[in-house]
Amino acid sequence: MHFGALAALLFSFQDLPTTGTAPINSSDAIWLWIALGVGVLALAAALILAKAVLSADAGTAEMRVISDAIREGAEAFLARQYKTIGLLALVLAVVVFAGYHLSPRTAPYALKTVISFLVGAVCSGLAGFTGMYVSIRANIRTASAARSSLNKALQTALRGGAVTGLVVIALSLIGVGVLFLCFGGLTDPQGVPYQLVGFGFGASLVALFAQLGGGIYTKAADVGADLVGKVEAGIPEDDPRNPAVIADLVGDNVGDCAGRGADIFESTAAENVGAMILGVALFPVFGIKGILFPLIVHAINLIASIIGVAVVKTNDTEDPMSALNRGFYVTSALALGGFAFAVHAMLNGDGVAWGWLLSCGVVGMITAFLFVWITQYYTESKYRPVQSIAEASLTGPATNIISGLAVGMETPALPVIVISAALLLSYYFGVRGLAGVHIAGIADYAKGIYGTAIATMGMLSSAAYILAMDTFGPITDNAGGIIEMSNQPDEVRNKTDKLDSAGNTTKALTKGYAVGSASLAAFLLFSAYLEEIKSIVTARVNDAHAAGIPAFMPAGWSFTNINLAEIPVFVGALLGAMLTYLFSSLAIKAVGRTAQMVVKDVRDQFRENPGIMEGTSKPDYARCVSIVTGAALKEMVLPGVLAVGLPVAVGLIFRHLSSSYGSGSEGLTGVPSHLVPTINGVAVNLSGASAVAGLLMVGTISGVLLAMLMNNGGGAWDNAKKFIETGAHGGKKSDAHKAAVVGDTVGDPFKDTAGPSLHVLIKLLATITLVLAPLFL
Amino acid sequence: MHFGALAALLFSFQDLPTTGTAPINSSDAIWLWIALGVGVLALAAALILAKAVLSADAGTAEMRVISDAIREGAEAFLARQYKTIGLLALVLAVVVFAGYHLSPRTAPYALKTVISFLVGAVCSGLAGFTGMYVSIRANIRTASAARSSLNKALQTALRGGAVTGLVVIALSLIGVGVLFLCFGGLTDPQGVPYQLVGFGFGASLVALFAQLGGGIYTKAADVGADLVGKVEAGIPEDDPRNPAVIADLVGDNVGDCAGRGADIFESTAAENVGAMILGVALFPVFGIKGILFPLIVHAINLIASIIGVAVVKTNDTEDPMSALNRGFYVTSALALGGFAFAVHAMLNGDGVAWGWLLSCGVVGMITAFLFVWITQYYTESKYRPVQSIAEASLTGPATNIISGLAVGMETPALPVIVISAALLLSYYFGVRGLAGVHIAGIADYAKGIYGTAIATMGMLSSAAYILAMDTFGPITDNAGGIIEMSNQPDEVRNKTDKLDSAGNTTKALTKGYAVGSASLAAFLLFSAYLEEIKSIVTARVNDAHAAGIPAFMPAGWSFTNINLAEIPVFVGALLGAMLTYLFSSLAIKAVGRTAQMVVKDVRDQFRENPGIMEGTSKPDYARCVSIVTGAALKEMVLPGVLAVGLPVAVGLIFRHLSSSYGSGSEGLTGVPSHLVPTINGVAVNLSGASAVAGLLMVGTISGVLLAMLMNNGGGAWDNAKKFIETGAHGGKKSDAHKAAVVGDTVGDPFKDTAGPSLHVLIKLLATITLVLAPLFL
Repeated sequence: MHFGALAALLFSFQDLPTTGTAPINSSDAIWLWIALGVGVLALAAALILAKAVLSADAGTAEMRVISDAIREGAEAFLARQYKTIGLLALVLAVVVFAGYHLSPRTAPYALKTVISFLVGAVCSGLAGFTGMYVSIRANIRTASAARSSLNKALQTALRGGAVTGLVVIALSLIGVGVLFLCFGGLTDPQGVPYQLVGFGFGASLVALFAQLGGGIYTKAADVGADLVGKVEAGIPEDDPRNPAVIADLVGDNVGDCAGRGADIFESTAAENVGAMILGVALFPVFGIKGILFPLIVHAINLIASIIGVAVVKTNDTEDPMSALNRGFYVTSALALGGFAFAVHAMLNGDGVAWGWLLSCGVVGMITAFLFVWITQYYTESKYRPVQSIAEASLTGPATNIISGLAVGMETPALPVIVISAALLLSYYFGVRGLAGVHIAGIADYAKGIYGTAIATMGMLSSAAYILAMDTFGPITDNAGGIIEMSNQPDEVRNKTDKLDSAGNTTKALTKGYAVGSASLAAFLLFSAYLEEIKSIVTARVNDAHAAGIPAFMPAGWSFTNINLAEIPVFVGALLGAMLTYLFSSLAIKAVGRTAQMVVKDVRDQFRENPGIMEGTSKPDYARCVSIVTGAALKEMVLPGVLAVGLPVAVGLIFRHLSSSYGSGSEGLTGVPSHLVPTINGVAVNLSGASAVAGLLMVGTISGVLLAMLMNNGGGAWDNAKKFIETGAHGGKKSDAHKAAVVGDTVGDPFKDTAGPSLHVLIKLLATITLVLAPLFL
Repeated sequence: MHFGALAALLFSFQDLPTTGTAPINSSDAIWLWIALGVGVLALAAALILAKAVLSADAGTAEMRVISDAIREGAEAFLARQYKTIGLLALVLAVVVFAGYHLSPRTAPYALKTVISFLVGAVCSGLAGFTGMYVSIRANIRTASAARSSLNKALQTALRGGAVTGLVVIALSLIGVGVLFLCFGGLTDPQGVPYQLVGFGFGASLVALFAQLGGGIYTKAADVGADLVGKVEAGIPEDDPRNPAVIADLVGDNVGDCAGRGADIFESTAAENVGAMILGVALFPVFGIKGILFPLIVHAINLIASIIGVAVVKTNDTEDPMSALNRGFYVTSALALGGFAFAVHAMLNGDGVAWGWLLSCGVVGMITAFLFVWITQYYTESKYRPVQSIAEASLTGPATNIISGLAVGMETPALPVIVISAALLLSYYFGVRGLAGVHIAGIADYAKGIYGTAIATMGMLSSAAYILAMDTFGPITDNAGGIIEMSNQPDEVRNKTDKLDSAGNTTKALTKGYAVGSASLAAFLLFSAYLEEIKSIVTARVNDAHAAGIPAFMPAGWSFTNINLAEIPVFVGALLGAMLTYLFSSLAIKAVGRTAQMVVKDVRDQFRENPGIMEGTSKPDYARCVSIVTGAALKEMVLPGVLAVGLPVAVGLIFRHLSSSYGSGSEGLTGVPSHLVPTINGVAVNLSGASAVAGLLMVGTISGVLLAMLMNNGGGAWDNAKKFIETGAHGGKKSDAHKAAVVGDTVGDPFKDTAGPSLHVLIKLLATITLVLAPLFL
């Protein structure tokens, strides 16, 4: 029944009054074609990179045995995971399709919505699959290259990673661009962006389950293997006698690689769609160019990143991190230049000072740098936080944990200040940049908000390179494991250790980057949600008016009563914040339960086959892989369903509850009825939409802070242990080291399961509320 | 300069238009005299109880040596702490006084504000001091009584605790009542409640530092004593050879007793003032009775609690907890009856259905029960959460910690649902109860909000008894320590152990109750803040109008644009949530640093005087006490100043920033200017007030959830350890026990420093924003 309402979204926008008078300049369509062209080009570049990586030497037979086992495990997991996610997505698609057909008004748009949703889901899955296809083959080639030169190994790993980076950004760009084209965006540029929200929702859905499933898998295998291997059996990490060792290596791929890829795919998809919706508000100023601008930024992102990856080379003595940083600087410089060109060419017009708008983009880029720097400060061993944890390890595990949690709780402070400053500055620059624009209906607020949107695009303008560096992490980690397990000489091991250490750094930085972009993009997505509610209400009032029903819209009304002193908003906010805690708790417990199954299987294998520990027979790696796969997929369902279900439940409950409370909108909200749109004398019921807004916004704030606590706390514990392993405070085997291992283990599900899953949750909340907004009204 | 603005508050309310026409019925003043009379009576009862406790047998000379050391340490700490807090309060008072004198308009109100603030601070300090004065003398008398009968010991401890409970609630009642009277509340009942916000702020300031200083002291001494005693020297807890043992026992008093007393004093003070302000909105319905109602509820609270304490008795075989629960049931039943009488007698009038209003109170009472039950579920060893932590201890400290954190993050779920339901129900009952009231200016919203205020009063209507049970905790804990250190027979020890165990439970329950009432009261305080901003703006517009300056007030305007999609509100919200994390981090680190100083001193004493460990000479307890005292007082300053400073800074910065952003209010807020009050054609700048509202509300939500995580997580770890000590999973000395000790130590600063300090922080945010509201406009 209610799904009929879902369709009102697409329907209502068809009837939207045009907010300005600027005609569509058909020559502007060229920007769409340029963006799509660059997207295709980037896919071609990814193909070339992939071929280059795959044609490299695939190592010795001994190495291949291990690599094949990892590959098979990862592919088996992905196949089963995609089957589960696919089924879920299909069910949702059918329900939406059927719901749209319940009302003749909405039926014509059913196909569009479902297509948009499915395209988003498929693109996200495809990006994840392709990236992992290459990275689980790049690992052995990196290992093999390390036998000859560090540079070759570095380049193999980075190029393998770049395939993920390019495919993710290119597919997001092409997906949004093609849908925009097919839905008639060139003729109705102000209506079509709203129809693309399904794409973001599809991407979010896949990302949530990919990150949850992958995150549970990777840490359950890691913790399980450590508990039973290092602690019980006393064998080193990555020892081939440990039946869970392959599962552990598989985990790096399905968690860090496929998971983070889906995360960034979702970020760019949501940001693309959100920024296009905000571009609609400024249509009278920029025309279609303001709407296509986000796509061009990602085209620049792709070109800059391809060149950035191409210039990375090193020698055998340099720290690989320096080489990776050089590539990042090249990418950033090119992205800045391209950004300046695009702003100048596209965001121009009467009264527009494009320099100010470029400054918004620069604010975003600086924000990205600062987030990366802050993450380094909190997670690298040369700074106070990690040092303090290492020192606290001297008095045992309890003080190590207390100190790590204190560091984790401190970490949100600087990022919050940076985000606050970035929002204020980019808002101010946006207002200044458009101060000369005097068009009715375009307030300073819209100008400022567009400034923050440009900042978000600036922040994401080197995403492809960042993602390449991130995927570099699991590839080098795997390469190190293969070298270790195939008994290569120490000299080779040293090289992969250097790469692995750089990979750990890049993985940590990407998490900082991901949470930073999520929090900046959040504001953009809030604004898009409010714009959408306003549009739907306006359309309904206009419809009623056209049908001869008395309807009233207060002058200058916009949906801004997300007032936390109203019961629906406050309760929504409480529930949103609570969701982030409960979700994290479920994710962490899922890791614990799955890890227990690993421990049990390894113990069983040691008991059933005593030859394993003696080295006379091989453990059954596949059995362990299969057990983790099944358990992780089962465990991801509950937190995932909670994340999808709670916002929907809140919206529906408050929509219906409101009518029990006193007179109309005043009952629960306290807003006098002459300030509220009415249809046929009855105030439009905004309680559901308000409650969901409260849930979305406060859930996001709480989620961002919790994610920072977990990501950085976990990273700091990890590096405190590594710092002690370099010889500090007694070095390996000391009591301090034992204490630090406890902290490291606690941090694992924090930083690799719950934290990254929270990034995705935040964006899912935004896209799900965008898609289901009509349901709540 | 800016402090001049501070004064506008009092000034503006003098000119407030009366919202209704009901005349003040002078016979209603009787209710104020009744409330004050009961308050004085309760103080007399407290005096009688104190005398009874003090006249009890004070034990053997050996016991007195220990008790005297505790007493001296606690008194020395309190004296130095109050000196620090007093200085700080005086500085603030002078600044406020001077600020008010900067403008001739506000100067006449300077004295009132400063008096109100100082009275609040002094009452809070007095309540804390009196309570502790008795409890550090009740401990030895409880110990001595335990040598004859369990009943006598139980009664001594509970009556000692009741002194705190009665003094806290009575002084809060008398303080508010007398100020109301002296400020002319009987002639200007609609203006005076706003002038009492200083009382709440004074109480909050003392509570913040009392809880922070006490919390740091108690856990630093506890963790330090354990680390160096149990872990390094291998001596049991409470062993007299440990130089830190007296500091540990002192800590129970200054943290749990003085700290929690100040916490609940602040709760009732803030709730009294907030509910009176909301009563102003309903003045046309209830007259002055609606404003005096909160005071009468606390009078009932006092009478019910005195009787509840009087009926508690037990025998030597019963679980002392059952006896305490019986007293609670008696108190609750009496409170319910009294509540019904008060609602019937006071909240009545044309069109009022008092039964519905009573239901609001019942909702509050049920909420209190549910919070206590949920706290028990999460912290008692017979339920799943603690069981799961105990089980996870089998695989070592890492899994114990992971499991405890997962439980902690799960804990907010049920309380949030309960609070949400309580708000929705009491709002609904409020609307229904006043549905027959049709007076212009009284919307459904005001009716519903008053319903939630009644629910909050219902929840706090047994606060005095709860506080008596809470203070029972440190008294019995101390009694156990005295028995242990003075080598009493096992039979006596068993009795104090039973009491101590009941005390641990009551301490945990009180924390659940405190956080529950804080979150319910938060909503009331938000509403009071919004009411206050609306009143100030209205008064300013009226003033301008009266002075012949063109001024405009949109019809039906109220301060409801706490819109999270506005930059000031969003940034304020981010900073508010961040504050709770940073504050917790600082509190936890303060414990760590202070504990290190304890460890160092104990090591020094063992080295300087080898006779201590041999038992041939006594350690220097006082030296250790003095070190902890100095360190804790130093460490409490930074988090305290952060908590006071951040909201003020945010309000002032955004108030000034706004003018740089585009045109007037539209610049940062997007609200069209015809919907905003204007003076001389310029929109009233609401950015500062909005940013502070965002900080207050989201800071509160984040703080409530973090506090629950810490309180319940810490309690669960504690009891998982105790559960294992009963013999489960290998019992004492097993590896599981060692792992559980790690969790217990981690939980200590969570549950006894950061968590309780967060309750206070939440209320401080509310009172500081109420007092400084005029600054932000």
